[in-house]
Order: sequence, then C-alpha cells, then structure tokens
Amino acid sequence: MVRELDFDTYLKELRVQIEALLPTVVQPLASPATLKDSMMYSLTAGGKRLRPLLIFSTLEAFEKDKMMGIEAACAVEMIHTYSLIHDDLPSMDNDDLRRGKPTNHKVFGEAMAILAGDALLTNSFDVLVSSTHPDVTDAMKVRLVSTLATCAGAEGMVGGQVADMEGEGQPLTLSELEYIHHHKTGKLLSFCVTAGAILAGATAFQIEKLQEFSSNLGLAFQIRDDILDIEGDEATLGKPIGSDTDNNKTTYPSLLGMEAAKQKLDDHIDHALQALEASGIYSDRLKELCLYVGKRQN
Amino acid sequence: MVRELDFDTYLKELRVQIEALLPTVVQPLASPATLKDSMMYSLTAGGKRLRPLLIFSTLEAFEKDKMMGIEAACAVEMIHTYSLIHDDLPSMDNDDLRRGKPTNHKVFGEAMAILAGDALLTNSFDVLVSSTHPDVTDAMKVRLVSTLATCAGAEGMVGGQVADMEGEGQPLTLSELEYIHHHKTGKLLSFCVTAGAILAGATAFQIEKLQEFSSNLGLAFQIRDDILDIEGDEATLGKPIGSDTDNNKTTYPSLLGMEAAKQKLDDHIDHALQALEASGIYSDRLKELCLYVGKRQN
Repeated sequence: MVRELDFDTYLKELRVQIEALLPTVVQPLASPATLKDSMMYSLTAGGKRLRPLLIFSTLEAFEKDKMMGIEAACAVEMIHTYSLIHDDLPSMDNDDLRRGKPTNHKVFGEAMAILAGDALLTNSFDVLVSSTHPDVTDAMKVRLVSTLATCAGAEGMVGGQVADMEGEGQPLTLSELEYIHHHKTGKLLSFCVTAGAILAGATAFQIEKLQEFSSNLGLAFQIRDDILDIEGDEATLGKPIGSDTDNNKTTYPSLLGMEAAKQKLDDHIDHALQALEASGIYSDRLKELCLYVGKRQN
Repeated sequence: MVRELDFDTYLKELRVQIEALLPTVVQPLASPATLKDSMMYSLTAGGKRLRPLLIFSTLEAFEKDKMMGIEAACAVEMIHTYSLIHDDLPSMDNDDLRRGKPTNHKVFGEAMAILAGDALLTNSFDVLVSSTHPDVTDAMKVRLVSTLATCAGAEGMVGGQVADMEGEGQPLTLSELEYIHHHKTGKLLSFCVTAGAILAGATAFQIEKLQEFSSNLGLAFQIRDDILDIEGDEATLGKPIGSDTDNNKTTYPSLLGMEAAKQKLDDHIDHALQALEASGIYSDRLKELCLYVGKRQN
C-alpha cells in the first residue's frame, strides 16, 4: 500500500513517476525540433513537483485511483514551467540561471523561449482533457479546463505576476504582499486540490475547504521561502541566500520581522490543517505535505 | 433572413456583433487594471474578424443556430490577438505599428505585452467552454478544447511561427513556404471550420472536407497577401506596400513569379470550392467567403 510508505519515500516515488511522464506529453508532438527541445529542456529540469503531488495526494485522500489525475498533473507542470520560462525573460526578471542551469532564453534565445512557453501553455489544455480513464467524464474535463484557465490566467497566476511587477521597488503592505502570493503561487496550488476534488466527485463544501487549505499552504510556502532566503543553508538550498535583501524586495520577514514571520507561517499551517479537518476527507498525506512545506530546507 | 443579405452587409453585420461581444469576455475579469487595459487594447483593435466569420458561416451552412458558436468565436479571436501581440515583440518581428496603431509593447511595455498575451491565451480556454446554449454538450466542449490546443500549439500556429523564424533570411522552397503558412495561418482557420462542424454534429467525412476547404482557403489568403504587398493600393490596404521585397522575404510571387502565383491562388480557391461541394453541406456563405478571400483588396 502506497499509504504505508514514509513521507520522504512517498515524495520521491511520485516525483520519479511524474518525471517519467512529462517527456511523453511533448516527445510525440509533430513540431519543429528546436521548439520541442526548448519545451523539453525546461519541462524536465527538475523541481519539487509539488503541484502534481497535491493532485495525487488529494485523489488519495478521497481513496480514488491516482491514475485519474495523471493528465491534470502533467498539464499543471506544463503551466508552471511556461510561467518560469516567461518570468526569467530579459524584460521580466532577467534571470540567467534556474535550478543551477542556464535559463531557457540563455540556451535557445529570447524568441524561442517565448514560443516554447506559449506552446507549453497551449498544449497543456490538450493534455488536460486527454484522459481515457473510465471514471473521468466529459463534465469533469470541462470543469478542469475552466478551473485551470481561471487559476492560471488574468484572475490568477498571470494577474499575480502583473501585481508583482507593478509592486517592484516599492514598499508593500501586508495585504498587497498577500495579493501577489495568493495569485502568483496560490491559485495554481488551488487548481491542484480542486482538480483532485473534481475528479474525486467531492462536494462543493469539500472543494471550498480544500481551497482554504491550499490557499494557506501557498502563503506558508512563500513565507518559508522568504525565511530560507535569510536563514537557509546555501548548499542544501542549491542557490545563494540574501537575494531578496539585495534586491530590496518586500518579504514577510522584512515587513513583519523574523519572529512574527515565523509565527505567521505557523498560523497558516494551523489554518490549513483546520480546513483539511473540516473537509472531512481522509488526509494523512495532505497533512504530511502541509507539515513538510512548513519545515522544508530547500 | 440573414441568408438573404448581400455578402458585404453580412460581413459587416457579423463584425459588428463580434466587436460588441469581445469586450464582454475581458471586462468582467477580476485582475489588475493595467493587464485588462493591455488585453483590451489589442483585442478591440479591429481586423477582418475572418475567424469568427468562418465559425458562424459553417454553423449557418449546417442550418444551425449561430449563437452556438459565440464562445468559440471569442476564444479564437483571443488566440489570434495574443499571437499578434507576441509576434510584434522586439525579440520577434519588432514591429512598432499594427493596423495603424502602436503595437501593444509600445504602449504597455514589453513585460506587460508578454503577460497580456499569456492571459488572452489562457483565458480563451475558459471562454471556449463557457457556453450555456442547450445544444452545446460537454462532449463537444472537450473536442473544441483539444482541437483549439492542437491547432494553436506546437503542432499548429506556434510551430508555424517557429518555422517562419528559423527560415528568416534564407531562400525557401515552395514546400517550406507552404509548411509555414499552413501552420502559422491555416491551422487556426482549420480550427474555425472544425469548431463549427463539431457544434453542428457533422460527420467525420464532412469535417475532413471542411479542413481541406480551410487549408486551401488559408493558402489562398496568404498568396493574396503576398500579391497585395506588390500590387495593392496603399490607401485601401491601410499600410505601405513592398515590405516583403524590402525584407528579402520569400513569397509566392518571389518564388514562382507573379503570373504563376496568381494561378496558384486560383487553384487553391478552386480546390477549396471543390472540397466544400464534396462535403455536401449547404454553403453559399462559405462559397462567397472563399471568393472574397481570393479577390480582397485589403
């Protein structure tokens, strides 16, 4: 039984599975070779794969077949990957490195990086509706499309990126900071639990509680990120610390002080766990995932 | 009866309808104001609205309610608009003007133009599945999503844009030139007739014939474009002629000579009309649209 694995092994196994799946959605595409290389370069560049994990763990919490969520898991990683490619562009964050490797535009040029991002984004919707699992209905697929577009588009991730960009170099209030993270990161995490719940046939109340869970999880994730940028170990983290301070970025510790930021992280984790409890679904894995996010070292 | 209108009036009326619809898909979005302004700026900048016309005319050819295609029509214009915004970017075609107005990045900056394109692309999929028309089923919506993603993504429009970019400044063969136009322009036109046909409950044979129709229509459209760039009237065209020659671009006339290019245009129009005939659907409007594309002056 998967559920009896300890959490680290569980994480590792799911990661291996998703890493094996991702190339299979791009490799068969009949398209120019360079475009595929560029898409593949970023899609297979590693990462925590937190979003697929959330989908699989939600399905598991409902005691459903994890295989129902494979397409949504690939689709959300394609969306996440495209957003990183576009965020790294010279006119955006102008980053040369991502996870220790040259960014997409550094390898393939700016125009190809934009197009590879566009293709990952576009094709993710084909992947999302491609399930042939007998329990995945057309009605579910339509809801998944609408939810993903809303969470990733102008009202979600892209809206958050715009707010982040517009807030750059300015002191932000806590509510402005929360708006940015809630949209830029939180909305896509919200898609993941919602997708798992839609596929599992959850009630509207359960979906609402799971979204409350993921919303708090997203903010906790971000606060932990801000803390690690100050207190993290560069070797474990795999990147230099102190970049937020160097870039004069508003963070939870810069806004609230380190102690209050840590308290806020704990509060969000508590709130997430309460929402999970209230949803009434079996959720050991989601609880573990939540505690992992609060304590992660990288 | 709409069908009794002369073609020019029919075109004008459909354009007025689609122009009125487009703002309604962006205006209600809860997102940062600048993002919405940037999306709206390009979405409402005019154009031939050829893609919505194709959807509506296909539905009409099947004697179906045009209202079934409203969401697909808005979605395809969102996709077309995002592709123009990204194509105009400094790292791509670096264009300052589009339809006589400053391009999106000239008004809103490069980063916002990228994000407005991303948002139009993403949200188009939500619009696509949002129909509440009683005859539009979930199964149809799923097919529309898959068809749009395939036609617009790595195997379609984005793939064509990559091929176009990679062929720049090189002499192209006829088959390379056709690959580019077939993907960059043709695939999205193919989506339009396919979408109309899916919504109308067409047979697989009818869809195949309509795709043959749209594929030839797309190439005819492009050849006419190339011819107008040499023989067009700048005032009617609304842009300077001769830019292809100035940019040393491979075109049908540069490759085949003007007479053979005009013959090829006629051949594609004939082929399109034959495919339409073979599909066996009532199609006066599609015939007129086809003849219009072959003779258009702008």
